[in-house]
Amino acid sequence: MTKERSYFEYLALKEKGRLSPEHVPEVYHFDRTMSLIGMRYLEPPHIILRKGLIAGIEYPLLAEHMADFMAKTLFFTSLLFRTTSEHKRDVAEYCGNVEMCRLTEQVVFSDPYKVSQYNHWTSPYLDRDAEALREDNLLKLEVAELKSKFCERAQALIHADLHTSSMMVTRESTQVIDPEFAFYGPMGYDIGAFLGNLILAYFSQDGHADQANDRKAYKEWVLKTIEDTWNLFHHKFTALWDEHRNGAGEAYLPAIYNNPEVQLHVQKKYMTDLFHDSLGFGTAKMIRRIVGVAHVEDFESIEDVAKRADCERRALDFAKKILKERRKFEGIAEIVSAIRQYDS
Amino acid sequence: MTKERSYFEYLALKEKGRLSPEHVPEVYHFDRTMSLIGMRYLEPPHIILRKGLIAGIEYPLLAEHMADFMAKTLFFTSLLFRTTSEHKRDVAEYCGNVEMCRLTEQVVFSDPYKVSQYNHWTSPYLDRDAEALREDNLLKLEVAELKSKFCERAQALIHADLHTSSMMVTRESTQVIDPEFAFYGPMGYDIGAFLGNLILAYFSQDGHADQANDRKAYKEWVLKTIEDTWNLFHHKFTALWDEHRNGAGEAYLPAIYNNPEVQLHVQKKYMTDLFHDSLGFGTAKMIRRIVGVAHVEDFESIEDVAKRADCERRALDFAKKILKERRKFEGIAEIVSAIRQYDS
Repeated sequence: MTKERSYFEYLALKEKGRLSPEHVPEVYHFDRTMSLIGMRYLEPPHIILRKGLIAGIEYPLLAEHMADFMAKTLFFTSLLFRTTSEHKRDVAEYCGNVEMCRLTEQVVFSDPYKVSQYNHWTSPYLDRDAEALREDNLLKLEVAELKSKFCERAQALIHADLHTSSMMVTRESTQVIDPEFAFYGPMGYDIGAFLGNLILAYFSQDGHADQANDRKAYKEWVLKTIEDTWNLFHHKFTALWDEHRNGAGEAYLPAIYNNPEVQLHVQKKYMTDLFHDSLGFGTAKMIRRIVGVAHVEDFESIEDVAKRADCERRALDFAKKILKERRKFEGIAEIVSAIRQYDS
Repeated sequence: MTKERSYFEYLALKEKGRLSPEHVPEVYHFDRTMSLIGMRYLEPPHIILRKGLIAGIEYPLLAEHMADFMAKTLFFTSLLFRTTSEHKRDVAEYCGNVEMCRLTEQVVFSDPYKVSQYNHWTSPYLDRDAEALREDNLLKLEVAELKSKFCERAQALIHADLHTSSMMVTRESTQVIDPEFAFYGPMGYDIGAFLGNLILAYFSQDGHADQANDRKAYKEWVLKTIEDTWNLFHHKFTALWDEHRNGAGEAYLPAIYNNPEVQLHVQKKYMTDLFHDSLGFGTAKMIRRIVGVAHVEDFESIEDVAKRADCERRALDFAKKILKERRKFEGIAEIVSAIRQYDS
């Protein structure tokens, strides 16, 4: 991979840290020649969130923290807050991070849907499932739409790799790291990444259950965290919007969107579209973690291969269903219900 | 306006000239310091197309030529043909043309829907119509969506000002000029600009009718040109797509979109979305020419003010209707029928 990515990682750490200082480690120094970033050491007991999810640890503030991080970093870099001049200047700069975008396009939107030497899955259990993906025309049509949006839509400065290994946590602290994929893309890609990886964590829990802990209570906590994350994000994002409604943001000028009725309609439409984008990107990211090049430890650490495949298949079937029918869902509670259905 | 726009005009003339040499005048020299472009002199009898439409002159090759120009310049600068690396490099460069984008955002997507010192219309006839625009919540909701797409979606290198004064024509020749607004934006903005301005020309014809020429036959030619332009564009664009299906374009990799059924679905969806975008942008551009800062000579040259207002109102009512309901229309023939309805 390109050395230049450390420059964009630095840029994004600085910008996201400015917007959400509680949830981004401080950067002390950057040396472009050496590709060296000096930043805060995230001291123990901070661990990678994914490790905590596998261990069955509850993080009571996780939903609140991630909703806050996403609401602030996405809102303040979008045209809801920014002028066109600021937007185009930053879009142009992050176009330089093209190699990282290309990598995402390949591993998320392309490889899982074609024969690729990089793909692997829990074989032979999922052989037929992987094949079915490549033959699912409707799914491929929807994936193409998501890929176009990823490539073309400069909606906000996204982290672009916001899975559960991109944050270090304690019960009190949530720190987002590793934004080396950052660029101006669709907001739903970040929200979807986080939610999708929580859903993977959910479907993996049966593989980690044992006599001491059946993981049933933990699964309920994961579902609650999924639901809270979206609901809190929705609340915080629209609150920022309301607060800055009369600011310089180019998208909805106050002189035009000047009555409560139109404001309500505009916001509802925006948030519904964002919800559907998040579901689309989130499920695409789930799929690629089961049949693509890079898997997740949530499943990989399940030693009983048949059991692992069973967990993965439920996650995969859920993801395919939601990706194709995402526009039918109106709220996160319906998604939680769908997760439960695929888990039974 | 910024002097820098001549640099982007030059860049776009070169690129569009490379892709569609028959319909773009050749550039001989550019001096960035002097903002000086030396290019082919479009000799008489070339005239600005709008002047020809007002004079009632038929251009039998216009639809063919414009369809060809749009198909080539849009297809070859999109991800249907380009790699992500080429795309992001060029998107970044044209982000520099931000002042021209800002101007468009203001005059097309903002001013007509709010009280602005720049707005004017045929008063007092259209006073109530102008006011109604500012109170039409549904219309403003749809305009916001179009504006977001204009600001955020880098689909192809668009001319971004492709109205009927941006081309010089004879019966045999069509030459597209003045791409100083060019940037990476939604394709439908170009297609809509051309179609929308033809529709304005259509609705203005009654104002130019006299005893010698009732313009009835000419109106039929304008409608035929509208219909032919879209149909020929559709044909040429999809033919380019089919021809380059196995090329380097990032959007639909041949290894994934590898059977006739999925190819058909993908293309149908893409072209339908593009049609709806074109209708949306085209009607937004019609509206701004009737109540915004810059009007069109098609209407302005109608000396009988009451008659002019009558022509303008029909165009405005048509535009509002289509902008709001554009997703219901499946083909250009339905649009031609709708134009006839609003003309009776």
